[in-house]
Amino acid sequence: MSGSSHDDGRFSRRAFLGAGIGGLAVGALGGVGGTAWARSEGADAAAPSDGVPSHTAYPFYDRAHQGGIDTPQQRHAIFAAYDLTVSDPRSLQVLLARWSAAIAQFQRGRSLGAVEPTRSSAVPTDTGEAADLEPAGLTVTIGLGPGVFDDRFGLADRKPAKFGPLPALPSERLEENLTGGDLSLQACAEDPQVAYHAIRVLSRMAQGSATVRWTVMGFGRASAGKGQSTPRNLMGFKDGTRNIKSDADLASFVWHDGADQAWMKGGTYQVARKIQMHIENWDSDFIGDQQAVFGRSKQEGAPLSGAHEFDAPDFAKKGADGEPAIPATSHVALAAHENNGGLKILRRSYNFTDGMNADGQINAGLLFIAYMNDPAAFVTLQTKLGQSDRLNEYIAHVGSGVFAVPPAPASGSYVGEALFG
Amino acid sequence: MSGSSHDDGRFSRRAFLGAGIGGLAVGALGGVGGTAWARSEGADAAAPSDGVPSHTAYPFYDRAHQGGIDTPQQRHAIFAAYDLTVSDPRSLQVLLARWSAAIAQFQRGRSLGAVEPTRSSAVPTDTGEAADLEPAGLTVTIGLGPGVFDDRFGLADRKPAKFGPLPALPSERLEENLTGGDLSLQACAEDPQVAYHAIRVLSRMAQGSATVRWTVMGFGRASAGKGQSTPRNLMGFKDGTRNIKSDADLASFVWHDGADQAWMKGGTYQVARKIQMHIENWDSDFIGDQQAVFGRSKQEGAPLSGAHEFDAPDFAKKGADGEPAIPATSHVALAAHENNGGLKILRRSYNFTDGMNADGQINAGLLFIAYMNDPAAFVTLQTKLGQSDRLNEYIAHVGSGVFAVPPAPASGSYVGEALFG
Repeated sequence: MSGSSHDDGRFSRRAFLGAGIGGLAVGALGGVGGTAWARSEGADAAAPSDGVPSHTAYPFYDRAHQGGIDTPQQRHAIFAAYDLTVSDPRSLQVLLARWSAAIAQFQRGRSLGAVEPTRSSAVPTDTGEAADLEPAGLTVTIGLGPGVFDDRFGLADRKPAKFGPLPALPSERLEENLTGGDLSLQACAEDPQVAYHAIRVLSRMAQGSATVRWTVMGFGRASAGKGQSTPRNLMGFKDGTRNIKSDADLASFVWHDGADQAWMKGGTYQVARKIQMHIENWDSDFIGDQQAVFGRSKQEGAPLSGAHEFDAPDFAKKGADGEPAIPATSHVALAAHENNGGLKILRRSYNFTDGMNADGQINAGLLFIAYMNDPAAFVTLQTKLGQSDRLNEYIAHVGSGVFAVPPAPASGSYVGEALFG
Repeated sequence: MSGSSHDDGRFSRRAFLGAGIGGLAVGALGGVGGTAWARSEGADAAAPSDGVPSHTAYPFYDRAHQGGIDTPQQRHAIFAAYDLTVSDPRSLQVLLARWSAAIAQFQRGRSLGAVEPTRSSAVPTDTGEAADLEPAGLTVTIGLGPGVFDDRFGLADRKPAKFGPLPALPSERLEENLTGGDLSLQACAEDPQVAYHAIRVLSRMAQGSATVRWTVMGFGRASAGKGQSTPRNLMGFKDGTRNIKSDADLASFVWHDGADQAWMKGGTYQVARKIQMHIENWDSDFIGDQQAVFGRSKQEGAPLSGAHEFDAPDFAKKGADGEPAIPATSHVALAAHENNGGLKILRRSYNFTDGMNADGQINAGLLFIAYMNDPAAFVTLQTKLGQSDRLNEYIAHVGSGVFAVPPAPASGSYVGEALFG
């Protein structure tokens, strides 16, 4: 998969070390241009099982949207939510500006300054574990929690009308230490060490301004994006068959039009949920029940009304017993846009494991991350799912956060700058 | 990296589903032959940054040694230690036989029986999340803890003279729930979902016979094996520069000669340690101190007596201040075979993160796994390191296990069968 067409996108951390890049070099180096996006939609993205496009670099500046939303889903993710410990707008601006500058470097495969400073008594600004590694398709997406618009920062009049903490939702069992946050970072890459490095250095840069509130490290097999095969969740079912895949749907359901708040134009909202699976119960269930829970076949992923994965579900079709072929309380029936006034959200989820659970079995779950231009879309869908979904017997939402995601910054700017204008 | 030379090694789970493979099909399908090993030592292994050799399949049967020891280090690992809940030799035999048969399937990229059984009331034997995935270079290595040779199984006279629980070692801070185990499984693959799937299904197969005691999920960038670039640990330093890389060293230091116990001929011992890093302390340290701790430069990884990573350390060389260029209490000086009567062990470590620590920073650590033909080698080295290593200020060994690793089984047999003969 290392086609020669990608060679112009290569940036190694090693090659740039001599430049001594670091600090607040906002925009000084710009992005890598618009070609990386187009490139990654090509051969690399179409055949993820054959190779990790480790030299893919996504530009950070001068794009309509931040990366990590409609860019092809990478194999690894670390999601982190932060509590702000400062309460003046200037400190928040500085943090967002420093984070933006650092992310721009990381997405090009660079370190934040020299891994090995020449002065013996210097403390390295970069922790070094990604030295020599390629960009690995890294994207880091910055989100702003509801707390940014409370009375601390004087930004209450900049709060979008539709934005605020999520209401309590049916059947959720949220844990305080896995819920909320004033800021979020979603780092995704083809290499877990690259994603870890980004979150670690960014967390370190936040010292004195913000502390980590909760994190989830996720993994996946391949993307559910355009032209890619559908990955499976840890229940063994394909997840993302009906995900948003067209620019028209992105325009309708994901991108904010900026009507009520101009600084959000081209942005979106991010909902993150840590979903624990009760895998012992699931693993001991009959295949027929498992398929009725999802409303799909397990191997092919076809709706129970059809034969192939991408067949449109026919919710009216009856089985031999006279009951709907796709049970009305199956996951696919409850979540389908046909049954929700056309509503869609963009999902970008990862699997996770936290070691063992109390029963001495290997833990499993889903880091659910979704993007939408109105958080009410998630509330609508999850209210319905939380009330009736057959899947609720086997899962619990234990973590939750909602964040406003500004558009990508122009060179020389930073994520969220327009918010302070 | 998807060269056509590899096409003969392709095995997809999908392609074999129709065969309805499952249960105790020991040896019925054999291995894929000796070519996978040779293949993986070629282009795929030499350029890991350019592609994941997801179609690489390692044979399980009819090899001198189990996989996951001298096979090239994969990107992902899950290590799991188990407590046996049965106390009769027959139950242990059955578990080892069932595990062996399942691992042989997984290493060929197959599921354990149909992902979607045809009978609606069937409970699937396979959890399904690796359906459609290629073998991804999976190796699962089975180890036997000291408990296998206690009075439960009548195997006390089969215990190798050198084998037993590790003694207490200086400066370790072992946690009970991260230490010990009667059995171990080390699953390594280029795809985390493939490694997870193997451990999950094998853990499920153990129900009624063994429970999970502790697990660590590790990740790495690339291998420290033959011809591969040296990966970095989460302290930002290269780890594995002086690792065992020759067959002669493997013969001298790793493979058991079977002299006292014939069933161990071609086997080895596995030491697993979960090592927590105190990354706040480390990250705030001067680069000069960091380099003195390891005895190496950070960017190049050269010994402080030399200029290049693979320069032999010169422990006699003095710096401008008249002190040794490589401090005597540096990690490299204490661990070097030159300073330990020629002693070497084979290391096969991974990085891990467990989310946040109590200081609100991203956690970091090392899943240290080493192989040797006498556990005393680790005890000797770690006693010295635990007493004097400058690194001790920044790390703590919190988990530990030691396991006897039998050789690979012949077709029709299973790991450890000779132990019961």
